[in-house]
Amino acid sequence: MHGTIRAKMKKVIESVWRANLKLNEAGLTPLTWGNASQIDRARGLIAIKPSGVTYEKIKKEDIVLTDTSGTIIASRLRPSSDLASHLALYHAFPSVGAVVHTHSAFATAFAQACLPVPCLGTTHADYSPCPIHVTDPMTPSQIRTDYERHTGEMIVKKIRQLKLVTTQCPFILAAQHGPFAWGKDAAEAVENAIVLEYLCKMAFVTYVMKGKLKSIPQVLIDKHFFRKHGIHAYYGQQKVKGRFKIS
Amino acid sequence: MHGTIRAKMKKVIESVWRANLKLNEAGLTPLTWGNASQIDRARGLIAIKPSGVTYEKIKKEDIVLTDTSGTIIASRLRPSSDLASHLALYHAFPSVGAVVHTHSAFATAFAQACLPVPCLGTTHADYSPCPIHVTDPMTPSQIRTDYERHTGEMIVKKIRQLKLVTTQCPFILAAQHGPFAWGKDAAEAVENAIVLEYLCKMAFVTYVMKGKLKSIPQVLIDKHFFRKHGIHAYYGQQKVKGRFKIS
Amino acid sequence: MHGTIRAKMKKVIESVWRANLKLNEAGLTPLTWGNASQIDRARGLIAIKPSGVTYEKIKKEDIVLTDTSGTIIASRLRPSSDLASHLALYHAFPSVGAVVHTHSAFATAFAQACLPVPCLGTTHADYSPCPIHVTDPMTPSQIRTDYERHTGEMIVKKIRQLKLVTTQCPFILAAQHGPFAWGKDAAEAVENAIVLEYLCKMAFVTYVMKGKLKSIPQVLIDKHFFRKHGIHAYYGQQKVKGRFKIS
Amino acid sequence: MHGTIRAKMKKVIESVWRANLKLNEAGLTPLTWGNASQIDRARGLIAIKPSGVTYEKIKKEDIVLTDTSGTIIASRLRPSSDLASHLALYHAFPSVGAVVHTHSAFATAFAQACLPVPCLGTTHADYSPCPIHVTDPMTPSQIRTDYERHTGEMIVKKIRQLKLVTTQCPFILAAQHGPFAWGKDAAEAVENAIVLEYLCKMAFVTYVMKGKLKSIPQVLIDKHFFRKHGIHAYYGQQKVKGRFKIS
Repeated sequence: MHGTIRAKMKKVIESVWRANLKLNEAGLTPLTWGNASQIDRARGLIAIKPSGVTYEKIKKEDIVLTDTSGTIIASRLRPSSDLASHLALYHAFPSVGAVVHTHSAFATAFAQACLPVPCLGTTHADYSPCPIHVTDPMTPSQIRTDYERHTGEMIVKKIRQLKLVTTQCPFILAAQHGPFAWGKDAAEAVENAIVLEYLCKMAFVTYVMKGKLKSIPQVLIDKHFFRKHGIHAYYGQQKVKGRFKIS
Repeated sequence: MHGTIRAKMKKVIESVWRANLKLNEAGLTPLTWGNASQIDRARGLIAIKPSGVTYEKIKKEDIVLTDTSGTIIASRLRPSSDLASHLALYHAFPSVGAVVHTHSAFATAFAQACLPVPCLGTTHADYSPCPIHVTDPMTPSQIRTDYERHTGEMIVKKIRQLKLVTTQCPFILAAQHGPFAWGKDAAEAVENAIVLEYLCKMAFVTYVMKGKLKSIPQVLIDKHFFRKHGIHAYYGQQKVKGRFKIS
Repeated sequence: MHGTIRAKMKKVIESVWRANLKLNEAGLTPLTWGNASQIDRARGLIAIKPSGVTYEKIKKEDIVLTDTSGTIIASRLRPSSDLASHLALYHAFPSVGAVVHTHSAFATAFAQACLPVPCLGTTHADYSPCPIHVTDPMTPSQIRTDYERHTGEMIVKKIRQLKLVTTQCPFILAAQHGPFAWGKDAAEAVENAIVLEYLCKMAFVTYVMKGKLKSIPQVLIDKHFFRKHGIHAYYGQQKVKGRFKIS
Repeated sequence: MHGTIRAKMKKVIESVWRANLKLNEAGLTPLTWGNASQIDRARGLIAIKPSGVTYEKIKKEDIVLTDTSGTIIASRLRPSSDLASHLALYHAFPSVGAVVHTHSAFATAFAQACLPVPCLGTTHADYSPCPIHVTDPMTPSQIRTDYERHTGEMIVKKIRQLKLVTTQCPFILAAQHGPFAWGKDAAEAVENAIVLEYLCKMAFVTYVMKGKLKSIPQVLIDKHFFRKHGIHAYYGQQKVKGRFKIS
């Protein structure tokens, strides 16, 4: 029976497996840090990296399946200890199809500094018209009990509070902790995690040279974001119908 | 007929294809960012990277041909969305044979900071006797309509305003956006893009250590530039007759 | 007889050999710098890198065995000149099973600046609930006589003075010199050396962006450290019984 | 006859060829920048990199031989345009057996900032008991005529002025230009060039964190330098008889 479920989830498992390899290849996740997951909303199943396994050793069979409450299904390993953070995002936002968490160096340093990054240039605007936001710090009781769930919920809270749309705000920094990114599938979530790290690296250099972090004009942000995303997009090879369909 | 045109443009297509691979290999263009093109002025044709295609997947057949108005010729994919920026440079400067645009980290950060870089050392002078200039920011209407063409025209405007010669000023930073470089062919344009990123990285370290960005003396700039370029050049293996003939 | 002893120590020799390769692969030890050792407490023997040998050339046969006084046993090469520093740690702390010393760039720079690093984020807390401490500078007479032994003893002194537990404080910076890390075996000591370098790199960026180095709350430190270490750990695949059993 | 001379110089040619490959591999010389040479004092011949040739394409046959006046001998390519700088060092210092010049990023940035680097830690002291010095800027007439020879002579002048011994001071920064390193043979000169870049990178981080560049005590410098160099050295595998015999 395990075999049947895993067979049905073959594509999602492979997508998550590839995403985890890609994360490591891109240098975002030293050692066993970080994790990627993807949800199959029709089946109510999530595929996620196993906890504490070295990237070069992860096989497709190691990818863990759980239901949307986090119960392990048809898997022999334990899921990433950050599963509950991913679940909070899946529960809150139907458009989130995959979640990635890393400790990539520059993004984590900005999370440590609790410093949001405005849109400093068109590289940022190509991926998001919003700043890189930072969640509020958690209370001691949120940390002590259900810490991973609360980590996810602080992200949800910040996105709701600012009335952000997750397809337009594809990443955030968890205060004192590190970056989270998402997308329609694991490949897109990984791409957003790569972009987030790159934007923070450039923000660092920009800040050192300029002494401040100042947003570019809204009209330029909109131009770049909407030439790549949404119904008027003209970047890439395929007709773009919905938001975030980047070819 | 498509085959005939592409056969005639074989060398230029291959030059552009190699340049795009090299850009990625040099780490200047994460993901699908950046693009290289080359013009065949005799034929009035331009070869350019297709839009939104991953570097490791680009084949020679994917390189797009257009005429000098930007109309696609004998190609199955859409050209880079930055084509109009490249065209503006080809139209304005007969000596520009190829154009490269990247989002390389340090150069983009300087473009975000809108910070020109004077000639800080002989590494810079070996490639250009001019500072790395930054274009003026665009007006909202320039951004809203024909944005990519205006991006190129702001570069043209800055070069003309400062009476620069494109063979002596082989790169520029588009304000709030990122670096552009050019050369007699795509290989040279890529080399200039690599140099630009390297100069910005060193300018960053120099600025942190010195607290300012100060040009070296003109006599030293001239010595280095003209030992490599122009009729009195003595660097490299081949007789140098025209400017920018680096062996 | 040499063969017999080395045969019995085969696993430890292999562990040290792999650790030295890994150190170099991780970019922590340019040229011939740095060294890793591991102790077999039952046999009273230590396996350590030979002095001044290039990493790519080290063979298992080159790994040097010594007794706990530092006398060479069944080996044809001289041990690392830092052996006496390792011995001081093995003598003082029964829980230290392996020691690693590197000149990794960011950690060494913090050692040069004599700057301790508080726990700035959860990446740090995942590995240690303590700051990265710096030893006191040595006196001229400590430097002149038995310098390497004194280097180790200054580490021991600092750990005792602060009443630290070596399984909770797996690394330190030797003032004006560079980083030392340890663990239950050479693989774990190398992992801690990698983490130490990464934490210092992120501390550098955090400091530049924030203007200070400020610890995260103790409750968050404890949460992260104890979900990975100790009897209540729930990170990784294996039952965690003792401290520092990371799967 | 060409063949005979090159056959006699086979080992030196190979040493220079390997050194140039290693320079590039170590990331110190982007594109065609930088060069390494070695002198055979008995034969009065120098082997040096050809000018403007890409590193991955250099073959042993391309290495240029010259006599000590710089006249090309038994070679088909032109020597590096920096040959005269190398010659100045060979003429002044009998103990210099090889010279390396690079544009490695951090060392070049310090040369651009005209900033000497005191001995900030033991990594530096392991290679030199002296600061990293910077030459004085050249006069316009020195730049205009025999520029490369004057570049070398400004290095000689600085070393003599400070009464430095070239075996103890294995590198320097040419003001507004970049780093030079030397050694008994090309391999050692390359090692010193790698160390110089690494020291400047760490000096950058140390300066940012500490706000100043301050030397460690002389007693610690001497301890580290003389445990590796000179008659009392005890680092490495071989008996050390002369200075700079690092095994």
